[in-house]
Amino acid sequence: MNYLERYKEEVSSFIDTVQLNKTPEELYAPIDYILKIGGKRLRPILTLFAAEVFGTSSKEAIYAAVAIEMFHNFSLIHDDIMDEAPLRRGNETVHQRWNLNTGILSGDAMLILAYQYFENYKPEVFRDLAKLFSKTALEVCEGQQLDINFETRDDVTISEYIKMIEYKTAVLVGAAFEMGAIVAEASPENRQAIYDYGKYLGIAFQLQDDYLDAFGDAETFGKQVGGDILENKKTFLYLKALENADETQKKQLEKWFSTTENSAQKVEEVKRLFIETGVVTDSEELTEIYTNKALAILDQMQISSDYKEELREFSLNLMNRAV
Amino acid sequence: MNYLERYKEEVSSFIDTVQLNKTPEELYAPIDYILKIGGKRLRPILTLFAAEVFGTSSKEAIYAAVAIEMFHNFSLIHDDIMDEAPLRRGNETVHQRWNLNTGILSGDAMLILAYQYFENYKPEVFRDLAKLFSKTALEVCEGQQLDINFETRDDVTISEYIKMIEYKTAVLVGAAFEMGAIVAEASPENRQAIYDYGKYLGIAFQLQDDYLDAFGDAETFGKQVGGDILENKKTFLYLKALENADETQKKQLEKWFSTTENSAQKVEEVKRLFIETGVVTDSEELTEIYTNKALAILDQMQISSDYKEELREFSLNLMNRAV
Repeated sequence: MNYLERYKEEVSSFIDTVQLNKTPEELYAPIDYILKIGGKRLRPILTLFAAEVFGTSSKEAIYAAVAIEMFHNFSLIHDDIMDEAPLRRGNETVHQRWNLNTGILSGDAMLILAYQYFENYKPEVFRDLAKLFSKTALEVCEGQQLDINFETRDDVTISEYIKMIEYKTAVLVGAAFEMGAIVAEASPENRQAIYDYGKYLGIAFQLQDDYLDAFGDAETFGKQVGGDILENKKTFLYLKALENADETQKKQLEKWFSTTENSAQKVEEVKRLFIETGVVTDSEELTEIYTNKALAILDQMQISSDYKEELREFSLNLMNRAV
Repeated sequence: MNYLERYKEEVSSFIDTVQLNKTPEELYAPIDYILKIGGKRLRPILTLFAAEVFGTSSKEAIYAAVAIEMFHNFSLIHDDIMDEAPLRRGNETVHQRWNLNTGILSGDAMLILAYQYFENYKPEVFRDLAKLFSKTALEVCEGQQLDINFETRDDVTISEYIKMIEYKTAVLVGAAFEMGAIVAEASPENRQAIYDYGKYLGIAFQLQDDYLDAFGDAETFGKQVGGDILENKKTFLYLKALENADETQKKQLEKWFSTTENSAQKVEEVKRLFIETGVVTDSEELTEIYTNKALAILDQMQISSDYKEELREFSLNLMNRAV
C-alpha cells in the first residue's frame, strides 16, 4: 500500500513544518505537543486519498487534511478532560501535563486553527469545506454528549448505540473523504457517495474496535485489552449480550457492570459471557453488514476502476486488522 | 438613541426565535440557557449598526451579529470554568448549574454554531466573515492565556496589560463592527477604519471598566465593586500605582495584593492607595487617549456626516457611563 504511506508522509512532513511557536507559548506549546506525539494520521490520509481519486493532486488537499487532523486532536484534548484520562498515545494527556485550563483553551484554539486552514482555498471551496466541517464537528459534539449520557442510563438501545458511534466517530471519516472530493470539485453525487462510504466504513471500524477492545491481541491492538469492560462501557457487545442472555447470564452481566472492580477476573468473566451469549458472532456479522454497505456504495461510484480497486483494497485492509 | 434600541430589539427577537431544542438535550439546553439569560447584546448591536452605516439594512447583518453573540457567550462559558466563577449575569454559570463536562462541550458547540451562521451569506462574504472571525477568536484565546499568565507573574508591564485587554476584549469590538461592514460590502479602507475605531473604543471601554470596578457606583455598575481588587487583578490601576508609588506605598500595595483576604478594608485601603498615587487621573487620561484615537479614525471615515455624528454620539455615550 505504497500510496497510503506516501499520503502519511505528506501529512507528517506538513505537520512537522507547522510553526506554532507563537506567543503566548503557554497556549501554543500544548498544540504542538499533541500534534507531534503522533497517531495514525488516518483521517487526513483519507482526505488526500479522496482528492487523488477525484482527479486532483494530494498536495492540493493538504490544508483540508491538516484541518481534519487539527479537529481530531482538538476533540481528543477535550474528550480526555471529560474522561479524566491520564494517557494518550502512551504520553501524558494535555490537561495532565499542563492543567485543566490549558486543556480547555488550547483545545479551543485548535478548533479555530482548523477553520483557518480552509482559507487556503477559493471562496466556493472554502464555504463547502467549512460547511461540511461545521456540520460534522457539531455531530461529533452530539456523539460525545450521547456517550456521556449512556454512562448513567440503563436503557440504551442498540440503535441508539449505533447512532452514537456514527456521530462520535463515523461522520468524521465520511467528512475526511468528502473534503478531498470537495477540493477536487467532484460532482455532488460523488461527494455524497464517498461521504456515505466513509461513514459506513467508520461504523464498521468502530464496531470492530469495540470487539478488539475485548478480544484483540494485547501485542498488536495497541490499547489495554478489556478497557471497555473495566469501564463498564455499554458497547454493542454488552447491549447485544443483554438481549441474548438468559436470566442467569443477564444477572451476571449486570452484576459485573455495576462494579468498578479493576480485575483480570472481571474481564475474563465478561468475555466468557460475551462468548456464551453468541455476541462475538453477532458483532462480526454487524461489522460485515456495515463493511458491505460501504462496498456497495463504492461499486456505484463514478470513478475509474483502478481507484475503485484501491479503495476496496483499502477498506478490506482496514477491516482485516490483526486480532 | 432610538436606533440602538431598535438594533437590540432585532437581536433579541432573533435570539428568541433560535430553536436549539435539538437532541441531545443535555448539549443544547445550556446553550439556550446562556443565550437567554440576557446581557447587553452590545457586540451584535455594533454589527447591525455598521451594516446600516455602510448602506445595508440591519436585517442583512443579523446572522453575522448573532454569530458574534454566540462566540461571546462561548467564551463566557469557558472563561467562567477557568475562573471558577459561580455566577454570570446574576445567574448560575453553566458549569455550576450542570457540570464541567457540559460547560466544555456546550461551549465547543457554540463556537461551531457561530461559524454556521455565516453560511447564510454568499461565498465571498462567507469567507471574509469566517476569516476575520477566526483571526479574532484566536486573538481572544491568546488574550485569555495572557490574562491567566498575569495571575502568577509579578513583572507585568503596562504595555503588556494593554495588549492583553486589546486581545481579550477590544478586537472583538472591532470585529463586530467590521462584520457589519463586510456584509455591507464596504471598501477595504472603510473596513479597516471601522475595525480600528472599534478596537480603540474597546480598549477605552475596558480601561474605564477597570476604573469602575474599583470606583463605580454599586447601584449602577452592575458588578461587585472592588471585585478586581479582591482577586488581586493586575489592572492598569494596580500596575500604574506601583510605578507611581513611593517605597512605603509600594510595600502596602504589594502586601494587599499578596493576600486572598476578602474584606471591605482591603478594598478601601487599595482604593486609597490608587487615589494617593494619582492613578485615578492617569486612568482617566489613558481612557481619553484611546477614545480620541477612536474618534480621530471616525473623522477620516468615508461615510455620511449623519452617520459620523451617530457613531460619535454612540462612542461618547458609551464612554460616559454612570460612575
